[in-house]
Amino acid sequence: MLRHDGRTPHQARPIKITPHFSKHATGSVLAEYGDTRVICTVCIEQGVPPFLRNSSPPQGWLTAEYSMLPSATSTRTKRERQQTGGRTQEIQRLIGRSLRGAIDLKLCPDMTITIDCDVIQADGGTRTTSITGAMVALKLAVNVMMREGKIKRNPIIAQVAAVSVGIIDENVLVDLDYIEDSKADLDMNVVLTSDKKILEIQGTAERAAFTKEQVQSIIEHAEIALEPIFELQNIAAEGREAQS
Amino acid sequence: MLRHDGRTPHQARPIKITPHFSKHATGSVLAEYGDTRVICTVCIEQGVPPFLRNSSPPQGWLTAEYSMLPSATSTRTKRERQQTGGRTQEIQRLIGRSLRGAIDLKLCPDMTITIDCDVIQADGGTRTTSITGAMVALKLAVNVMMREGKIKRNPIIAQVAAVSVGIIDENVLVDLDYIEDSKADLDMNVVLTSDKKILEIQGTAERAAFTKEQVQSIIEHAEIALEPIFELQNIAAEGREAQS
Amino acid sequence: MLRHDGRTPHQARPIKITPHFSKHATGSVLAEYGDTRVICTVCIEQGVPPFLRNSSPPQGWLTAEYSMLPSATSTRTKRERQQTGGRTQEIQRLIGRSLRGAIDLKLCPDMTITIDCDVIQADGGTRTTSITGAMVALKLAVNVMMREGKIKRNPIIAQVAAVSVGIIDENVLVDLDYIEDSKADLDMNVVLTSDKKILEIQGTAERAAFTKEQVQSIIEHAEIALEPIFELQNIAAEGREAQS
Amino acid sequence: MLRHDGRTPHQARPIKITPHFSKHATGSVLAEYGDTRVICTVCIEQGVPPFLRNSSPPQGWLTAEYSMLPSATSTRTKRERQQTGGRTQEIQRLIGRSLRGAIDLKLCPDMTITIDCDVIQADGGTRTTSITGAMVALKLAVNVMMREGKIKRNPIIAQVAAVSVGIIDENVLVDLDYIEDSKADLDMNVVLTSDKKILEIQGTAERAAFTKEQVQSIIEHAEIALEPIFELQNIAAEGREAQS
Amino acid sequence: MLRHDGRTPHQARPIKITPHFSKHATGSVLAEYGDTRVICTVCIEQGVPPFLRNSSPPQGWLTAEYSMLPSATSTRTKRERQQTGGRTQEIQRLIGRSLRGAIDLKLCPDMTITIDCDVIQADGGTRTTSITGAMVALKLAVNVMMREGKIKRNPIIAQVAAVSVGIIDENVLVDLDYIEDSKADLDMNVVLTSDKKILEIQGTAERAAFTKEQVQSIIEHAEIALEPIFELQNIAAEGREAQS
Amino acid sequence: MLRHDGRTPHQARPIKITPHFSKHATGSVLAEYGDTRVICTVCIEQGVPPFLRNSSPPQGWLTAEYSMLPSATSTRTKRERQQTGGRTQEIQRLIGRSLRGAIDLKLCPDMTITIDCDVIQADGGTRTTSITGAMVALKLAVNVMMREGKIKRNPIIAQVAAVSVGIIDENVLVDLDYIEDSKADLDMNVVLTSDKKILEIQGTAERAAFTKEQVQSIIEHAEIALEPIFELQNIAAEGREAQS
Repeated sequence: MLRHDGRTPHQARPIKITPHFSKHATGSVLAEYGDTRVICTVCIEQGVPPFLRNSSPPQGWLTAEYSMLPSATSTRTKRERQQTGGRTQEIQRLIGRSLRGAIDLKLCPDMTITIDCDVIQADGGTRTTSITGAMVALKLAVNVMMREGKIKRNPIIAQVAAVSVGIIDENVLVDLDYIEDSKADLDMNVVLTSDKKILEIQGTAERAAFTKEQVQSIIEHAEIALEPIFELQNIAAEGREAQS
Repeated sequence: MLRHDGRTPHQARPIKITPHFSKHATGSVLAEYGDTRVICTVCIEQGVPPFLRNSSPPQGWLTAEYSMLPSATSTRTKRERQQTGGRTQEIQRLIGRSLRGAIDLKLCPDMTITIDCDVIQADGGTRTTSITGAMVALKLAVNVMMREGKIKRNPIIAQVAAVSVGIIDENVLVDLDYIEDSKADLDMNVVLTSDKKILEIQGTAERAAFTKEQVQSIIEHAEIALEPIFELQNIAAEGREAQS
Repeated sequence: MLRHDGRTPHQARPIKITPHFSKHATGSVLAEYGDTRVICTVCIEQGVPPFLRNSSPPQGWLTAEYSMLPSATSTRTKRERQQTGGRTQEIQRLIGRSLRGAIDLKLCPDMTITIDCDVIQADGGTRTTSITGAMVALKLAVNVMMREGKIKRNPIIAQVAAVSVGIIDENVLVDLDYIEDSKADLDMNVVLTSDKKILEIQGTAERAAFTKEQVQSIIEHAEIALEPIFELQNIAAEGREAQS
Repeated sequence: MLRHDGRTPHQARPIKITPHFSKHATGSVLAEYGDTRVICTVCIEQGVPPFLRNSSPPQGWLTAEYSMLPSATSTRTKRERQQTGGRTQEIQRLIGRSLRGAIDLKLCPDMTITIDCDVIQADGGTRTTSITGAMVALKLAVNVMMREGKIKRNPIIAQVAAVSVGIIDENVLVDLDYIEDSKADLDMNVVLTSDKKILEIQGTAERAAFTKEQVQSIIEHAEIALEPIFELQNIAAEGREAQS
Repeated sequence: MLRHDGRTPHQARPIKITPHFSKHATGSVLAEYGDTRVICTVCIEQGVPPFLRNSSPPQGWLTAEYSMLPSATSTRTKRERQQTGGRTQEIQRLIGRSLRGAIDLKLCPDMTITIDCDVIQADGGTRTTSITGAMVALKLAVNVMMREGKIKRNPIIAQVAAVSVGIIDENVLVDLDYIEDSKADLDMNVVLTSDKKILEIQGTAERAAFTKEQVQSIIEHAEIALEPIFELQNIAAEGREAQS
Repeated sequence: MLRHDGRTPHQARPIKITPHFSKHATGSVLAEYGDTRVICTVCIEQGVPPFLRNSSPPQGWLTAEYSMLPSATSTRTKRERQQTGGRTQEIQRLIGRSLRGAIDLKLCPDMTITIDCDVIQADGGTRTTSITGAMVALKLAVNVMMREGKIKRNPIIAQVAAVSVGIIDENVLVDLDYIEDSKADLDMNVVLTSDKKILEIQGTAERAAFTKEQVQSIIEHAEIALEPIFELQNIAAEGREAQS
């Protein structure tokens, strides 16, 4: 099937990861999947939340926040200044879980790692772009922390990236943009490690229920699409701009 | 593997669905998966939310709310009286999406169907118990609405039920209770239709990433476990207490 | 006067108290006054609120929360997720004051007793049903705490129960259900101890102001109506289902 | 018993009602019971809340708000800027109910009467001072509305005033100030009409449960104490400063 | 230009400062600029906010809160019970900054000084009336604290007062009342010390942009208008009612 | 005086305005004053807020929102998800007032123009950068609206830009960065039109009160500093990247 922007089914949009995007954060990138642009930053604060205070062995914490600028969407999105909406909470919980799968928090005692994913432009796939970018920002921050002696051993235990995979008219297509997303029968987000293990999978039938064979095909598509993205992450984690 | 309560891997806990549990709701059940007990009710109000007001053809809306009594958990859970927490929002969005997959809202114009799932006792699997129970409450409510002539044609397009499937020490086990849940490497929620199509699948690696073969096995386990549950739903939807 | 359900003026509706209704709470009952059903639970946490922290002699605290399931009422009630409404606050303050009258908190140092009254079905008298049920749940919880050695001496100093009394067309009637309540000229809630002392009395002229002679008659009606209810509380506090 | 300020048991503190205290409100007074000072105002807006919009016959609405200045209490009280506390809600509901008993809202169609009681200094009895003052402010506002032709017939159907009555060491004492209030065994608020009918009664055992004979005595004390207060209200309602 | 109330351009409205207005606050006044009336109180609590806890040398904190009674305005103003509005926050920040300019907080270690400005009647200039009144309340509170030995050396380093200055049809006019304010081209608030230094200046073109020459003229007008007001502050700070 | 980055007193930091930064907004720029970077966007929605609904002649509305990404500051800033803080409200009100001075809203009937200023990196002067950038975004949006025929006549009536001016050790310095800002005796924000009229001026003595002569000097410095910035705005408003 010819996609509206000429991509093959397994092909993600042009990806770009710009490291050191933000002056103040310990680690930061601007991550782009096509027109979707997300500032991903990592800030590290001392201390852990109450439920971890007496954990044995001591361990750190990693949490994520996600937000969209009002102007990120074609119709202005209201700021969430009184209540954090369900969609936002669902996404930031997904990002947090995924990145906690990438790090051994027992090697980061007494520290809270906050990942902020701020979408400055949205065109589909904001949560997957966030995860892929956050992984690089986390690596950059860990490098700083190790250089400064605040972390003794490298706590990164997995490299994580994400892509959405959808089904449109029986075709399995990776990295849906907004136009594709709005006509997909199924939209699944797949979070993989660089050794092709699954960290999180979440799929919803938007128009039609799906089969377990389709789930297999979707995961395989994600594996193929994420391969070059893991490469880009490696380049950006060394501090160089990475672009597909 | 012998489970701590003697169940086989494919076996859900004792299930009970008590219809007409609540005097005022249009449809209602008490749904039980083992010690997990959820009151599922369906209330129907006139009108639709603003984003559907001028939809063409006109269509109704279905939304879900989920809550736990403070005393439902072994440690008292604080009431969410100022902010609705992320976990709550994630779950009620899941319930809403799943049940919207069961109904053709174009056949319910100018009406908002609210599903309330109130957990009065929690022992693992509260979201899957909610979905299974809500399906029956929805059918009961639809029956009332059709009898009263407020809905012309039966809008139910699928029968939906859910079960959690986890992996513990490489074993795939269905319907985890709280004890199993807390030591699972992976916890996946599977929402199926009675014709074995998937409506929603959501899995998170809690301790170890997983493979696509495991995803297949998990879905197959869910299919087997849900088969008798679909039967119980049918009995309860006729107004009789159903018990496995 | 013949009441619409055949009761005499001094007669409460059929009462049922089911002890140990909830697996996790330290004490719990399902309390029913006719079709009004309330889950009353007692959870005990360590520590006291700031204003009691340096009290001398040290003393514990007892507080109450009240809530209705959305489906408890004939028209769905909106969840109080951003603000706790005035009616809710008024009722939970009443329950808290009443139960604090039943216990010597100096015998429960460094402990916060939280009473949760969750109305799962409402048909008038939810606050009085809550108080009567909470008393039993409190006794059950105290028994557990004493058995576990966490409370040394029995802190229960009074047995408390409540009933509403109304005036309709000059007739004094106890335990109004929803239909009676909506046409009452006066609705008074009376909280008594088993030795016929008054712990709290609260009455509002709904349609016509009333006299002090009527107040006397109302209290006398409450005394008569509550006599068998105190008996049922005793049975349930021994762990047996009690039913009038 | 000699009271700490020399009053007899039936004697309220010096009372002062200053009419026309506020330039902008339709009706307003400064009401003082001893050192307790409350600004009571009545503002009238067009329209009624949704639940009355289609009432037949059409009727208006009366609601009350109560607040304390932070500096009104000996220890500064935090402003309620995010949540309205339980005590505040309980009091403003009491004021609203009491004043609704004074007016026939069917004679005030399509109008919402808001009574604001703002305590600028507190020394016990803020809710009773509020009710007594609000009654006068309401009369003043009604006079304006009738003069302006916005109300056709006088809707005032009762004159309402309130006083607290407490029991200290078996002595029944009216109009407790803060010092007395903090050592009372029982504190009851009595809202009467000028023809000695009861509109609202609310009493709580603070230290010891009480008897129905005590309730009688309390109401009788309230009747005696309120007699001169009804006189003062009449003077103030004519626009003259009234002082006992 | 003849002003609607006969004042000269440099002339403030009749000013009145009533000290010791509130029984409980450490310092308090009722401040009046014409029909604008503000209760200004100072409460002192032990401790400082977190950001000052380890400051070296130790220093106290001064903060301000501003609020209007609903009945203070010609149209009833809604209470800010869920969100504090932008205007309120802007004004209370201005009051806080201005009064912090009047005191050396290093001489008030471990103490938080809260200034409450509650507008009971508004007719323009509520923020300037608040600042002028708060200065006197602060002096009165400092006197008490020094008398009680809680402050060793007098921390007052400047005497502060404020006035609004506007431009209407090219005329510079001080202390605008509501009528003037609503037709001003420019409204500037000027906070001066008694030695004619500027602590804060804030001006907004309401209808037409202005020139730097006009800014000069405005400040000169403020200097002239505030001269007698500083005198009144001195009288009131000695505990005597001061009136222009 | 030599500034820490070598600038002269009248010299702003390197300024850059990148137009069309955001794909979805009607008008947008990235505005940079040195390391301070703000995304300024303009979204236009149909309708006006209630208080303007019946204005005659009909007029549109312009409002502004300001926010900082958590990672914009050297220490992570907490998201304002439950309450909008005082500083935020003060700044967004300033931006709104300033930009309303630039446009004739009677030429934009039935339309709400929302300006969003989102600080992605902060190094002093975020509010002035926001105003300067928002002016360009507004012009770009107006161009679009006129091209699409939604606005008939060009409503822009003034060109607005802003700069902060501070006093450090008696030296008047423009466009303070964070380091300078934190040691300034006085910090003033000056909003000018391109014809050197003042739209808003707001100055606070941080350490020492100031004189009216200093106010004059500050305004003159702002005039000089803003001259080249008005030029850059003109370039960017034509759709070209502008850089000093």
